[in-house]
Amino acid sequence: MLSNFYDKAYELEKAFRESDDFKTLKELSDKVNADPASKQLFDSFRSVQMELQQKQMSGQQLTEEEITKAQQQVELIRQHEVIGKLMEQEQRVSMVINDINKIILKPLEEIYGNEQK
Amino acid sequence: MLSNFYDKAYELEKAFRESDDFKTLKELSDKVNADPASKQLFDSFRSVQMELQQKQMSGQQLTEEEITKAQQQVELIRQHEVIGKLMEQEQRVSMVINDINKIILKPLEEIYGNEQK
Ligand SMILES: [Ca+2]
Ligand SMILES: [Ca+2]
Repeated sequence: MLSNFYDKAYELEKAFRESDDFKTLKELSDKVNADPASKQLFDSFRSVQMELQQKQMSGQQLTEEEITKAQQQVELIRQHEVIGKLMEQEQRVSMVINDINKIILKPLEEIYGNEQK
Repeated sequence: MLSNFYDKAYELEKAFRESDDFKTLKELSDKVNADPASKQLFDSFRSVQMELQQKQMSGQQLTEEEITKAQQQVELIRQHEVIGKLMEQEQRVSMVINDINKIILKPLEEIYGNEQK
């Protein structure tokens, strides 16, 4: 039973890897990484986002200035042709992964009566 | 491709539901719920744990008293015959789910070069 469960996980991983959604994500990511200027822009964007997230998670309030700056940066980076597409694709893939998680965790939800249902 | 991906997720969900690990979890959980005293004990244990977790996540420090009390409660509840087993089984299932997630998300890790590898 257990081995069957892992087999199915590997099949799902393969199907994910071969999906259009993942392939598109990979292509866009490779494109960004292949161009040093784009890569630097995206890396610096990510590290600012991560920094703010960690600040929030540690219970600190973000300043108005930090929020405005972060929003401006998101707007700016969305207009970058390749990075904008990459970000859209990341969002799509993360929605798919969410769906998949909900499907797989349904049995647990039935036990714990999770209200997210 | 996408539909294949979802099909595989449903197959995995079925395999999880039919696994010994899940069945044991369900049996133990049903057993605890069927006995009002056990259920109340476990529910109250859970709500204390959740409360402390939320306090931590909001960036507040736990007091020494809260930590000691929580640890004592864990020790006490582990000695409850059925609840103790249920908690062990929850831990085992959560490890399995973690493994599965790592397998499925491997393609993303390869893109983002996640250091957890
Ligand atoms: Ca088995
Ligand atoms: Ca497709």
